[in-house]
Amino acid sequence: MTRAPAAAAKSIKSAAENNMHVKIELKTTKRGEFIDVTSSVQKEVTKSAIDNGLCIVFVPHTTAGVTINENADPDVVKDILMMLDRQIPAADHAYKHSEGNSAAHIKASLMGSSVSVIVEKGKLQLGTWQGIYFCEFDGPRHREFWVTIIHS
Amino acid sequence: MTRAPAAAAKSIKSAAENNMHVKIELKTTKRGEFIDVTSSVQKEVTKSAIDNGLCIVFVPHTTAGVTINENADPDVVKDILMMLDRQIPAADHAYKHSEGNSAAHIKASLMGSSVSVIVEKGKLQLGTWQGIYFCEFDGPRHREFWVTIIHS
Amino acid sequence: MTRAPAAAAKSIKSAAENNMHVKIELKTTKRGEFIDVTSSVQKEVTKSAIDNGLCIVFVPHTTAGVTINENADPDVVKDILMMLDRQIPAADHAYKHSEGNSAAHIKASLMGSSVSVIVEKGKLQLGTWQGIYFCEFDGPRHREFWVTIIHS
Repeated sequence: MTRAPAAAAKSIKSAAENNMHVKIELKTTKRGEFIDVTSSVQKEVTKSAIDNGLCIVFVPHTTAGVTINENADPDVVKDILMMLDRQIPAADHAYKHSEGNSAAHIKASLMGSSVSVIVEKGKLQLGTWQGIYFCEFDGPRHREFWVTIIHS
Repeated sequence: MTRAPAAAAKSIKSAAENNMHVKIELKTTKRGEFIDVTSSVQKEVTKSAIDNGLCIVFVPHTTAGVTINENADPDVVKDILMMLDRQIPAADHAYKHSEGNSAAHIKASLMGSSVSVIVEKGKLQLGTWQGIYFCEFDGPRHREFWVTIIHS
Repeated sequence: MTRAPAAAAKSIKSAAENNMHVKIELKTTKRGEFIDVTSSVQKEVTKSAIDNGLCIVFVPHTTAGVTINENADPDVVKDILMMLDRQIPAADHAYKHSEGNSAAHIKASLMGSSVSVIVEKGKLQLGTWQGIYFCEFDGPRHREFWVTIIHS
């Protein structure tokens, strides 16, 4: 687990200056890693000034995903990565995709491309031990994730 | 599969009395089990008096998840649990998380922390055989899930 | 990967003529296949005339799912199907569900029953290589998926 350094997270307003849809860049440093982006997402929720609604965190890549899991012990997300690696081998004679990163595509679909989190009184409603993780499966790369907040 | 007894489901209005975001408690009785919460969720949709929109069922735990699958034959969810157990071993020398429940964390991310269901005319729009299941992977425990309805 | 033929996609307005919730039929032709439905979904977004919001694609079946993954090289989704087949065997002595399609139910929950995609200026906001795939795991069958758009 790596916390996204503040300097690596850069918000880009969409062309329409719609403050409910922002793109946040991040740089991953390993082939596979889970990066806790909870505080970056909360920052966008705060900036949006939307009190109640739904926050969608969307990953626009096909070899990365997003999931919610424990943010207390960093070994938890390491164990998730380890078991995904064991179950979905990086190299396999049966893979047809020529880029050699089929495992990363499969893991991305297993984790999913978005998570939905309720917003109440301007705060992401997460359980005590929950954090939002950007899941890199084919890094290191320059990546981004998108945060959208729908007013309820 | 266990149907949540009516007595175990207790709605708690949020402090703001926002009737679109409620917390429902449930008690799980096994290490791993899928509990059909569809009728509890429908009850909240009905109480909300929101005719059309989107219902989000969110699980605020990191060793439990939520999924939609068959509600006709209880053997289906038993088979899902069995295969997850076989693929993600409970004990493994490579797990680093000291609490010994890494498998439950991994299964939680595989199932996901929320499901989204369309609401039309005050009814959850589910397929004929679909039910919403709270997925316990590290019970028995006192748990909760959150129901939020966004007006469309 | 098979692109849904235009003729197979038929929109059905809901009884209330709510143009934000439509059902699209499709016919699958194999036991397991991923069908790119992105253009069918975009067509519904365009018809809805909703500029900004959230699009939910929901699959009302329990042996089919939906996921977002690469739409450039058709081998990517073939590799996902292949690895799911290998990890979740079609036949296993431990399956209890008598219909013999437990593997399809398990894969459906692994992929998930819905995806959420942001809509901006009337366009689905997807990454460069992302497509939305209907995931058939127990075909061939007549199937449907539902598209709902929530205004933000």
